[in-house]
Amino acid sequence: MRQVAVLGVGMTKFGKSERTALEMFAEAALEAIADSNLTVKDIQALFFGTVYDGFAEGQMNTSAFAAHMIGAHNIPATRYEGACATASLTIRDAFIWVASGFYDIVLAGGSERTLLMDTRYSTRLYHMNSHHAYECPTGVTFPGVFALLAHLYASKYDIPLKRLKEQMAGVAIKNHHNAMFNPRAQFHKEITIDDVLGSAMVASPLQLYDCCPFTDGAAAVVLASAETAKRLVKKPIYVVGVGQASAGPLYTQKDIPRVKARELAAKQAYDMAGLSPRDVDLAELHDCFTVAEILACEGLGLFDYGTGGYAVERGDTKIGGKVAINPSGGLKAKGHPIGATGAAQVYEVVKQLRGEAGQRQVEGAKIGITDTLGGDLGTVCNILLRN
Amino acid sequence: MRQVAVLGVGMTKFGKSERTALEMFAEAALEAIADSNLTVKDIQALFFGTVYDGFAEGQMNTSAFAAHMIGAHNIPATRYEGACATASLTIRDAFIWVASGFYDIVLAGGSERTLLMDTRYSTRLYHMNSHHAYECPTGVTFPGVFALLAHLYASKYDIPLKRLKEQMAGVAIKNHHNAMFNPRAQFHKEITIDDVLGSAMVASPLQLYDCCPFTDGAAAVVLASAETAKRLVKKPIYVVGVGQASAGPLYTQKDIPRVKARELAAKQAYDMAGLSPRDVDLAELHDCFTVAEILACEGLGLFDYGTGGYAVERGDTKIGGKVAINPSGGLKAKGHPIGATGAAQVYEVVKQLRGEAGQRQVEGAKIGITDTLGGDLGTVCNILLRN
Repeated sequence: MRQVAVLGVGMTKFGKSERTALEMFAEAALEAIADSNLTVKDIQALFFGTVYDGFAEGQMNTSAFAAHMIGAHNIPATRYEGACATASLTIRDAFIWVASGFYDIVLAGGSERTLLMDTRYSTRLYHMNSHHAYECPTGVTFPGVFALLAHLYASKYDIPLKRLKEQMAGVAIKNHHNAMFNPRAQFHKEITIDDVLGSAMVASPLQLYDCCPFTDGAAAVVLASAETAKRLVKKPIYVVGVGQASAGPLYTQKDIPRVKARELAAKQAYDMAGLSPRDVDLAELHDCFTVAEILACEGLGLFDYGTGGYAVERGDTKIGGKVAINPSGGLKAKGHPIGATGAAQVYEVVKQLRGEAGQRQVEGAKIGITDTLGGDLGTVCNILLRN
Repeated sequence: MRQVAVLGVGMTKFGKSERTALEMFAEAALEAIADSNLTVKDIQALFFGTVYDGFAEGQMNTSAFAAHMIGAHNIPATRYEGACATASLTIRDAFIWVASGFYDIVLAGGSERTLLMDTRYSTRLYHMNSHHAYECPTGVTFPGVFALLAHLYASKYDIPLKRLKEQMAGVAIKNHHNAMFNPRAQFHKEITIDDVLGSAMVASPLQLYDCCPFTDGAAAVVLASAETAKRLVKKPIYVVGVGQASAGPLYTQKDIPRVKARELAAKQAYDMAGLSPRDVDLAELHDCFTVAEILACEGLGLFDYGTGGYAVERGDTKIGGKVAINPSGGLKAKGHPIGATGAAQVYEVVKQLRGEAGQRQVEGAKIGITDTLGGDLGTVCNILLRN
């Protein structure tokens, strides 16, 4: 197995877009290719993610059109879908095709357009990532799922709900603050604890500011063998570990709010890299809801179980803290264009490990991990990078 | 890169099913695992294909639930979509993960439920595999696309349309005949040239019997390293070549009715295997419409351009002919459950290369190729197998 590196990354400004998923992907892909000191004709295969393109724009088989859109004519182009973990899956598969020596230079990433659908329709669509026979009939949607997890978490670790709500608010405040320094983020607005605790109730205990937004956006990554990477770019960032795991319907999952698929996926990535959570300088992880960030930083081993909220209180997860969590602003404030999110996480980690993150730079960052969680904790994919 | 083999295969009876895509997949997967002399706990990863599960049953992130459904708890489970080529993409990616030594035993395949939707809705859904901005507004649907290709073919090779229609009818008659001996096929009904030429006009020159049906069904394949395969089963069938390519919107494609993506994909598969079209004993190829079989057998190099229809006339494509085309009955008569089709093709080739195809056996078959064509000639994937 050859060593694999990220040569270049690209992403659109996240937020509302009038462009199609294909057009947004083209922007991100061409930026990633230029960032790699390559041209489109160097790309040997495309690994493309989108979740709702069929519903949002009536487009299927989108990967073939994505390849054509950027002028990468006739290359193998495959679409992946794993709910919110979609783009991470594209990068993991791109990794193995390069690591195995089959391809030398490939493009991976995703694109999603969600804001042309209204919230009621989007909510029903997102709901389809729950099990249609066993979960959907209950009417539970994702805010409901994570509200249940928040209650379970508070109960399991004996944290008063009022205090957990303040800890969750801390996540929102931190991520909105980080996004202030990310020009590609959807939101550029500092928020206070009063904003969070005064916002509309969505699914108790989750309020509006505990929830990530709907977002349009695309992100892309060029991967190549380490040898090629060294020849082409000054600062290749190495993909040192990948991991993926699944889980069945929520009612079958033991030990929640612990996420078994995450524990397994992260262990694969750490083991492949010969690293441990103690080595991680920053994490871009799945804060679809504020409580999800707390669960994720524990599941990745960055903090002990039941202590993630206290870590937020102490400032351990800020840029400059023990381990910077979501320096980009995360899903919460950078935005969450479902099928693009995993690639946008790699974008941020690569920028950080290169030292190119500007005012949100995590000083001296050497190792970063990404984390995406699809569905009812059903698909998790982690990617571990180092400079 | 290690040699990779198919250990076992499974598929449902194709046709109308009252079961969900997940339930059908479980039947096919468990048959494939049993056929491999394995149990579910031996499966290390799942590569799962479905195209319309979101539309048909309101299910996304289906791969995680598919893994859970068969009891393969927490394994990496990835969904692929490439229109009608979907299941072939799962097998190609499963191949690389095993070939690279990352996994030893994996499961690939797909499932699709189409018949719970009425034809008008299905036609609109299938239409989404055309380009939504450049093609869908014209109103052209897939029968229309292949009708245009039939006219182009007749014109380019100076074949009177009446004769081409008889050649196409020959494809339908042959495939219905082959399906008589396939207990898993959707149709068990011999048809005559009068049936075909007397059937309803769909999109001139294509009549009802020139079109494959809508189908519910699932198919699955277990892949492993050759070393493991030899230990477990008597007749491993080796995956000796894989190929994949893409194309943009139809209006951008040069030289149609030749399919460039197929020519490129097939060449990759032949080159990887060190084989040529002359070595092929049987092909399971993409006869979504009768004219598509003629185009495919030429694109795979099995017959010269412009001669595929005459090969049908001569009986060269029958079981026992020069090269058996679609001995299973093909999409035309075995059925075409979109996201499962590529895996069902591998099912047939494996049965044939093992000598287990009963009354439809291609005697002495040593080498077989599969071919799936997604969208407006946009995604092609080929898999070359030998015994």
